[in-house]
Amino acid sequence: MGATLAPLAVSIGDPAGIGPEIIAGAWEQRVSAGLPPFLAIGDARAIRAVWDGPIAVLSDPAAAAAAFDAALPLIQVDDPGEIVPGEPNLAGARCALDSLELAAGITRQGMASALVTGPVSKAQLFAIGFTYPGQTEFVAERCGVSAANAVMMLAGPTLRSVPLTVHVPLADVPRLVTAELIITRARITARALTRDFGVENPRLAIAGLNPHAGENGMMGREEVEVIRPAIEALRAEGIDVIGPLPADTMFHAAARARYDAALCQYHDQALIPLKALHFDDGVNLTLGLPIVRTSPDHGTAFDIAGKGVATPTAMIAAIRMAGACAARRAGA
Amino acid sequence: MGATLAPLAVSIGDPAGIGPEIIAGAWEQRVSAGLPPFLAIGDARAIRAVWDGPIAVLSDPAAAAAAFDAALPLIQVDDPGEIVPGEPNLAGARCALDSLELAAGITRQGMASALVTGPVSKAQLFAIGFTYPGQTEFVAERCGVSAANAVMMLAGPTLRSVPLTVHVPLADVPRLVTAELIITRARITARALTRDFGVENPRLAIAGLNPHAGENGMMGREEVEVIRPAIEALRAEGIDVIGPLPADTMFHAAARARYDAALCQYHDQALIPLKALHFDDGVNLTLGLPIVRTSPDHGTAFDIAGKGVATPTAMIAAIRMAGACAARRAGA
Repeated sequence: MGATLAPLAVSIGDPAGIGPEIIAGAWEQRVSAGLPPFLAIGDARAIRAVWDGPIAVLSDPAAAAAAFDAALPLIQVDDPGEIVPGEPNLAGARCALDSLELAAGITRQGMASALVTGPVSKAQLFAIGFTYPGQTEFVAERCGVSAANAVMMLAGPTLRSVPLTVHVPLADVPRLVTAELIITRARITARALTRDFGVENPRLAIAGLNPHAGENGMMGREEVEVIRPAIEALRAEGIDVIGPLPADTMFHAAARARYDAALCQYHDQALIPLKALHFDDGVNLTLGLPIVRTSPDHGTAFDIAGKGVATPTAMIAAIRMAGACAARRAGA
Repeated sequence: MGATLAPLAVSIGDPAGIGPEIIAGAWEQRVSAGLPPFLAIGDARAIRAVWDGPIAVLSDPAAAAAAFDAALPLIQVDDPGEIVPGEPNLAGARCALDSLELAAGITRQGMASALVTGPVSKAQLFAIGFTYPGQTEFVAERCGVSAANAVMMLAGPTLRSVPLTVHVPLADVPRLVTAELIITRARITARALTRDFGVENPRLAIAGLNPHAGENGMMGREEVEVIRPAIEALRAEGIDVIGPLPADTMFHAAARARYDAALCQYHDQALIPLKALHFDDGVNLTLGLPIVRTSPDHGTAFDIAGKGVATPTAMIAAIRMAGACAARRAGA
């Protein structure tokens, strides 16, 4: 897989977090985990501070594939100075942003076949004037896509789930869930299931908002007034959708077998089952972009950075999934 | 276990649902599942319609223990006439209510050591003038306990979770979650963990309401204004509480190991992880009552009643847990 594809670009994330060590850990397991060639974008010294394996510092992404067997290929961004694991600073935040920007750029230009982003600290990024809510919105803009059309999906081995609303107070969710939102994100999700996951006839399941999906309007009217009309509109377009389903009975194994992706009304409804089932190997994907973008579904973990205890499992899953999606898009 | 205890009372639930067959199925597995003696309260003919095993119709609950090895002990309520599996009617609803009332009564009087309730149809009960929201509130009142102090817990082999609000629209949840509610239910839960589950120093985990538990007020203020003060008040009473925890990262195995029960802000937050992890053997308990009360965490399943496909797994789990809790209360 991916033999004819360009390598993947992996941004290092905050160099004081666990990004450097989990990228190195993923490279160490490249053969056993069956990973496609990738190159790190970031700071070599930050990686050397936590890892004594071989690094091939390159100036051209095209050289990465040939270097990958023997060393971790890396493109150096502006030197942030010495970075101490677990001690984030503004120079590190600039390095994280430079890495993200360069990795997104070379992927957008086709010199990398997919983008995998390491974990950043939003607080640190905001402190250097970053004006996006997160990496996803930044990448979307660089791809010329409105953030409203960049859809977050969390994916593990037995569940893919899409939160329709994300980082908003729970009290705002009933107001923010509109038929238009559901329809737009369902379309993007269905298209991504085909394009990126090879699901020819994608089956979507849409969760209700209220307990028992409202029991026909007895406990909340959103299912009747918003969700059901959206589902009917999607069906009229030929999209295979079930719902609104009671959220508590849609995530056991037999229920999950009935759909290819669950669309959930809010953050915890999507992420509770995903992380209960797949805490260590959940992947965050951005659907609806002209490029493939994934990231491990965890944060910078400053508290354990550099201590040799961070596991690269989620980074490996993110790289593997990005490679598989890129190969599918390329028809490989 | 339970050798010196009175048998458990198991109400049949709606006789046209799967109650009769799962009670019979539990009796068939009494030895392999290690179940304590129990007696059914309901209608013998409804059980015979779906099962050809031996039934010992008794007039005195005290005779149940001696009969249990050879036959399913049963106390007959008023004859509802012929009941057809899968075809609920008002006579069946009256039978369900009679069974519940008698089972609760004999348990309350100490002739049974615990109450296990079979699944009922609320719509059918309402049609015969039942004025309680559900069986739980009925049982609470018969025990002289305010429904507000009868706390629902869902329990599986690796997770116990308590929804602080239950059958209300999601939009109402932020308003309904008060510090008083959290404190009251946490106290009842902590006491039940000791009394019913033998946990000497119960550890509670309280979920946040908002994504990431609000990130210090950035995404919703309820954690700062309501949940955190409640936690501080509970700690001041000497109760071991952690939280508010981000709900999405509190249900994987390592996180669950940190607490004995999770208190969740709303229905789906509590039930999504419970049913994702323990769909087939979840037990619904009512905490805070003078009696032990459990039920299998599923409904009447009229659509499969009498077809021989209903599994007694959850009923067995409910009987086993009721027996264990009753034994602990008795100091057995």
